[in-house]
Amino acid sequence: MKILLDAMGGDNAPDANIKGAVKAINQIKAEVVLIGIEDVIRKRVKELYGKEIEEISDRFSIKNATETIEMEDMPTMAIKHKKDSSMVVGFNMLKEGQGDVFISAGNSGALLTGATILVGRIKGIDRPALAGILPAYKSRLLLMDCGSNTNCKPINLLQFAQMSSIYLRNTFGNEKPRVGLLNIGTEETKGNELIKDSYKLIKENADDLNIEFVGNVEGRDAFSGKIDILIADGFTGNVFLKTVEGVGKLVKRTLTESIKKNIFTKIGAIPALPSINALSKAMDYKEYGGALFLGVKKPVVKAHGSSDERLFEFTIKQAEKFVENKAVEKMIEKFE
Amino acid sequence: MKILLDAMGGDNAPDANIKGAVKAINQIKAEVVLIGIEDVIRKRVKELYGKEIEEISDRFSIKNATETIEMEDMPTMAIKHKKDSSMVVGFNMLKEGQGDVFISAGNSGALLTGATILVGRIKGIDRPALAGILPAYKSRLLLMDCGSNTNCKPINLLQFAQMSSIYLRNTFGNEKPRVGLLNIGTEETKGNELIKDSYKLIKENADDLNIEFVGNVEGRDAFSGKIDILIADGFTGNVFLKTVEGVGKLVKRTLTESIKKNIFTKIGAIPALPSINALSKAMDYKEYGGALFLGVKKPVVKAHGSSDERLFEFTIKQAEKFVENKAVEKMIEKFE
Repeated sequence: MKILLDAMGGDNAPDANIKGAVKAINQIKAEVVLIGIEDVIRKRVKELYGKEIEEISDRFSIKNATETIEMEDMPTMAIKHKKDSSMVVGFNMLKEGQGDVFISAGNSGALLTGATILVGRIKGIDRPALAGILPAYKSRLLLMDCGSNTNCKPINLLQFAQMSSIYLRNTFGNEKPRVGLLNIGTEETKGNELIKDSYKLIKENADDLNIEFVGNVEGRDAFSGKIDILIADGFTGNVFLKTVEGVGKLVKRTLTESIKKNIFTKIGAIPALPSINALSKAMDYKEYGGALFLGVKKPVVKAHGSSDERLFEFTIKQAEKFVENKAVEKMIEKFE
Repeated sequence: MKILLDAMGGDNAPDANIKGAVKAINQIKAEVVLIGIEDVIRKRVKELYGKEIEEISDRFSIKNATETIEMEDMPTMAIKHKKDSSMVVGFNMLKEGQGDVFISAGNSGALLTGATILVGRIKGIDRPALAGILPAYKSRLLLMDCGSNTNCKPINLLQFAQMSSIYLRNTFGNEKPRVGLLNIGTEETKGNELIKDSYKLIKENADDLNIEFVGNVEGRDAFSGKIDILIADGFTGNVFLKTVEGVGKLVKRTLTESIKKNIFTKIGAIPALPSINALSKAMDYKEYGGALFLGVKKPVVKAHGSSDERLFEFTIKQAEKFVENKAVEKMIEKFE
């Protein structure tokens, strides 16, 4: 298996990307191809480790890509014109079978556009979308769509339910995932037109999809551990996701400052710190890896833009499993 | 001034409503009219305090209302047919000038429908909506629309910005409130059609409204303290609100359990508990009072359904200020 890693994408590139890969290499069986400006990569590896990348592991290689897609670039333009960017090079390798999964922490829009145009949608899937994994009470929650499709139709939400349940079944073994629809109340009559129509569509098709459709779920109950998958249109899903992040930040900030203020708390907090750190960790959805771009013909993983080496390490291991579990092949089977 | 309090609405009625009013009475100058089933109220007061309500304070009185609007009742039906419910009685008193503000913790839909039909919209306002106050970093955040209007037009979001800034200016003194639009990215091009059109409309009118339009704000930055008002359509605003609540619940649960597990943490956590309690308090948006229903001709306050006596006490004091500040009069001036 070959994991294709965009070495130039993300806020902390190329260091975090390289270090994450080096940390991961001995925990995986796959080969890793670092895609990016070869000179830059080789130089940095030498500076960090005093060796060549192939000496660190013979499962490492570099694929040169001389252009860079910036965060401000318009996605379609970037994909069409920057043909030697790590993203376009990576997608082409993936399409040609020179790699099994592509990971990038770069420009989201370009990643989604590139995957859709270059790798191609699975026949039968109207819109691919990002599925992210978040912490929940003693479990985890898969959210789809995290933010790829701002304007959706009911068929898209139905397909999100279908794709995410196939992924979950193959990755974590949930035979019959419990699916909830993100809404503003539990009653069937609640929500805007899109949500109400999607509710009906998912309910009608729940048996065919082999899911347990729990019905409407409010944001406040999403983390209760009562659902495995949360379905939303891209706009609402992204608001949800970023709100979770914002509250997490506020908690960390308030708790840390509150502890700093009080000297007794400071002293007393020393044993409490592991709990607070554990909480911060559990609360940080980025701890749960990258988001899977489901609905295209090959595995694509969107790593968080701010990924540090630890998160790259985790995302690379997650990507290997994504391939091993053959979730994409199962999706192609079901839809085509 | 007369504060009209629905004594029968809410999960903990009538006890929490009565106790909250009794706690508040000596902190306010206004009179308080408890609206509901008189026999029930008088009996409960006797059991709790051993006196009549008028003996506790001569600023108390009771208005009999023999019917009850249940949580499951369809709003329009309830308002039209249960004419002797505390809600309909309360709204009619408000309309007739027999009270200055009406507070209820009952059926939201009935409250909003009742206020709109019986009290009436301010001329020029297309849709009234609930404005709620949430905690933010070292400050507070006003969110509008919290969930009244599931399907909105750009003009509604513009008017939400206008109404909420008038309220804020008169209540907390912010001369030029900083207004953000809840979106999935900061760039002007982000969001669905409604949000993009609303962005333009608010930007064009910012000077007239005497607001500082900060632009698009993501859920994760809503609590940063950089904005005073967050504008959203009712669906998105409600998802945001309930997500905040859900994360708060998860935090409390995880932190409490994490502390219980570790004996050292348990011991060490004793000094840390005030911080954690302070955090819980700061994180609980219900601590910040009820939501104001802005856009109707008289002050109406939606108390949280689960309000306990402390929250009723706070909401009653908040309602007195709502009247004193003449925010509604200012709105009528501006719009009519």
